[in-house]
Amino acid sequence: MKKIEHIGIAVKNLENSNELFAKLLGTASFKTETVESEGVKTSFFKLGTHKIELLEATNEDSAIAKFIAKKGEGIHHIAFDVDDIEAEVKRLTDEGFVVLNEIPKKGADNKLVVFLHPKTTNGVLIELCQEISLKE
Amino acid sequence: MKKIEHIGIAVKNLENSNELFAKLLGTASFKTETVESEGVKTSFFKLGTHKIELLEATNEDSAIAKFIAKKGEGIHHIAFDVDDIEAEVKRLTDEGFVVLNEIPKKGADNKLVVFLHPKTTNGVLIELCQEISLKE
Repeated sequence: MKKIEHIGIAVKNLENSNELFAKLLGTASFKTETVESEGVKTSFFKLGTHKIELLEATNEDSAIAKFIAKKGEGIHHIAFDVDDIEAEVKRLTDEGFVVLNEIPKKGADNKLVVFLHPKTTNGVLIELCQEISLKE
Repeated sequence: MKKIEHIGIAVKNLENSNELFAKLLGTASFKTETVESEGVKTSFFKLGTHKIELLEATNEDSAIAKFIAKKGEGIHHIAFDVDDIEAEVKRLTDEGFVVLNEIPKKGADNKLVVFLHPKTTNGVLIELCQEISLKE
């Protein structure tokens, strides 16, 4: 784990929340991106060396739709930057953590991502992410 | 808002969670601190330029006890570093955000803190914090 890469926040309406977070953070969203495979539309804000990611569900089966239905809008996950995602997954599973996807998958913002099961991390959904360019 | 200072995570048992997060983050907690006025015992981990704060309630009236009773263990708040907390509170209340405490109060880790009401911030409990030494 190198650093917190971003914090993901589940929102009902990305357009409204983009306005709200621009006011809150004093800076506008620098990009939006839809990740079809995850059923999410995302928006990123940069603050110093880390990012805030807003996530709106694009369909009812999306993890974000289910999260909001259960817990309401709010903080959804913390993403940590890693250099070697396979090595980090091995280290963490050896430590007893459970991953939601063993094979890294393509996430937003040009990242390979693996999620850890919140049951093994005090209820915190943790994302490991690695820049795809570093892999090539 | 300068940067994310820390992420606060509500836990039931600080000792167990200290062990768990040390394994997860690959680094041990660098300090623990009790904030009597808030009814919390805290533990801090450093990762790059930011921190993870674990919070255990020391009594049933603590906001952390209530949070866990309602939502279970998990991410409790995001704290942003600010240079001038009064100015930032003014800017944000002018923008329509609602603060939980207008007057900055003494938090953990030598900080003056103000919380924003989650109802005005997409369900996210946000803490503004300023190093006390900068005020003197």
